[in-house]
Amino acid sequence: MNIHCTLTVDLAERSYPIVIGRGLLGGGYDLAPHLAGKDCLIVTNETVGPLYLERLVGCLGNAAHRTVVLPDGEAHKGLDSVVRVIDGLVEAGANRDTTVIALGGGVVGDIAGFAAASYMRGVSFIQVPTTLLAQVDSSVGGKTGVNHPGGKNLIGAFHQPQLVLVDTDTLNTLDDRQLSAGMAEVIKHGAIADLDYFEWLEENVAALMQRDPEALADAVARSCEIKAEVVAEDEREQGRRAILNFGHTFGHAIENTAGYGEWLHGEAVGAGMIMAADLSGLPQEEQDRLRRLVEAVNLPTSATSISAEALRSAMQLDKKVLGKRLRFILLETLGRAFVTSNYDEQRLDEVLAARGASSG
Amino acid sequence: MNIHCTLTVDLAERSYPIVIGRGLLGGGYDLAPHLAGKDCLIVTNETVGPLYLERLVGCLGNAAHRTVVLPDGEAHKGLDSVVRVIDGLVEAGANRDTTVIALGGGVVGDIAGFAAASYMRGVSFIQVPTTLLAQVDSSVGGKTGVNHPGGKNLIGAFHQPQLVLVDTDTLNTLDDRQLSAGMAEVIKHGAIADLDYFEWLEENVAALMQRDPEALADAVARSCEIKAEVVAEDEREQGRRAILNFGHTFGHAIENTAGYGEWLHGEAVGAGMIMAADLSGLPQEEQDRLRRLVEAVNLPTSATSISAEALRSAMQLDKKVLGKRLRFILLETLGRAFVTSNYDEQRLDEVLAARGASSG
Repeated sequence: MNIHCTLTVDLAERSYPIVIGRGLLGGGYDLAPHLAGKDCLIVTNETVGPLYLERLVGCLGNAAHRTVVLPDGEAHKGLDSVVRVIDGLVEAGANRDTTVIALGGGVVGDIAGFAAASYMRGVSFIQVPTTLLAQVDSSVGGKTGVNHPGGKNLIGAFHQPQLVLVDTDTLNTLDDRQLSAGMAEVIKHGAIADLDYFEWLEENVAALMQRDPEALADAVARSCEIKAEVVAEDEREQGRRAILNFGHTFGHAIENTAGYGEWLHGEAVGAGMIMAADLSGLPQEEQDRLRRLVEAVNLPTSATSISAEALRSAMQLDKKVLGKRLRFILLETLGRAFVTSNYDEQRLDEVLAARGASSG
Repeated sequence: MNIHCTLTVDLAERSYPIVIGRGLLGGGYDLAPHLAGKDCLIVTNETVGPLYLERLVGCLGNAAHRTVVLPDGEAHKGLDSVVRVIDGLVEAGANRDTTVIALGGGVVGDIAGFAAASYMRGVSFIQVPTTLLAQVDSSVGGKTGVNHPGGKNLIGAFHQPQLVLVDTDTLNTLDDRQLSAGMAEVIKHGAIADLDYFEWLEENVAALMQRDPEALADAVARSCEIKAEVVAEDEREQGRRAILNFGHTFGHAIENTAGYGEWLHGEAVGAGMIMAADLSGLPQEEQDRLRRLVEAVNLPTSATSISAEALRSAMQLDKKVLGKRLRFILLETLGRAFVTSNYDEQRLDEVLAARGASSG
């Protein structure tokens, strides 16, 4: 076991540690002291379970555990899966001291977290993220929730975990497409909050894509640190936390238009960041740096399979949901983002025309 | 309109007012300033809707509203009903500024409150309770949730309302049995926290049962005040708030054994309080006073239709859920309660034998 670092998400009485390192699963890290009581329910999926469940159990000491194995994929991120987890808790005779442990990517974490938030009005929760996206983004910050046919993440809760345990060795089994998708959020963190980190990513992107363990651990650590800082300032996203949505207004439009599952979230965010940088009116040189980095992690930089009109309509729908104000996260410069509803409509049309398909 | 009083539930940034009075619905009270935005979703049921929906709408000014009408009764307090409310929110194009308004008794408030807690990770919520039980108990304090086949209120959230609006005129249409059930919680408030109030109830019980408007408004106000004080001290029931469960350990055992719906919650609490006072070893004279008051509101003082053995088994089940520690709220004296897991097992058997059916 090799603990790379331990960070703290500073939320007063809801503060919690993020432990990052290699070989933490498999008995390397003792989870028992982090359980609220003497038992836990592990939630995982059909892909991750066979790979890491046994290793996770090796960290639980004498704690009683049960497991709920969900089908893999965003298509299963609905209330039905939450009910399966709650049924598992009831069958296990779970009580207020039971801890729910999410072992998997963002979907597993979102489902398990909302179940933990809702069972007996809230039980303890531990995140053990196994994808890059979950390690640098979704496992930190307490957002949990599932999809409704009417929209993504419409049903959920803020429910902070007691601990996030990141074993970066789990990235060895991640497929290339998922690794790239996770890199979208890593690049985002540099672009919105830390030019030095952005430059470090430019220098280390080859090592990261070759899964160099030290480079990956460094990136996960710095990304978690940035996310933790932003969340600590604004836990419930009433202001600054929204900068974490850089690239996401465009990204959601892409995901909505293409149909969920066609584009991975990280892929849509990759292209979305390029569009947002363009809408920001960032100097061409800075736009090029962002584009080169997005290309270097093998993410799309445009959505040429989708018409500009379709993207525009999808945004209009988002607009309605937000109560008439469409909001963008724009860059003042590389490393500094701001939230605004005051953007140039004509420029938006030009961006969509340039990065979407022409209607021909 | 005649505002009897306005109380505050003191929870720092989550503080909110309880407005109590007569004729507040029907345009007497302007709800528009309490909405987070310009629209709301009203949740009610088939019984209450026809009586009060129009009057509630009269309080909304120009705010847009939609209504979800649920079937009446505890049998419908499940996730299905929560989904119906969330579907209604999606269909209405509800956003983060939408307010959910619960118009009805405890079941409607619990369902609507959990939907409000979960939609987009939490939207504003207003309680307009129309039963005595909801007015003095369930609408205050932020507990929301629904039943799971494995147990009552297993799925839920703490979600405080922005406002509780109590029009005591709605009690005029409440049937006698429901009025009595609500009186159980009123008596409970006196018994656990305020001997003066208990004495006032002894003196005014006839007026209350005759639905004297002044007496009812006084009782609702004092009960809300007591509940608000207890909740303000311990919002998430980590300690003292548990005293509000006086009579409920026995009550749950009665409800569970008889099958939900046979006994109203308040009826089970009525008999449960008598058992808890007995287990407390309260002087006989004080036990008699409690029994006379419970009888005066036409509530049962024993569960002679249920065997002592069945009650004991139901408690064992509760015990398992609580993680092996069965907890009772006992009375030190009339007007002062405490929480304990340290009770006399033999005395418990005697109480159950005396107040349940002999197995003969």
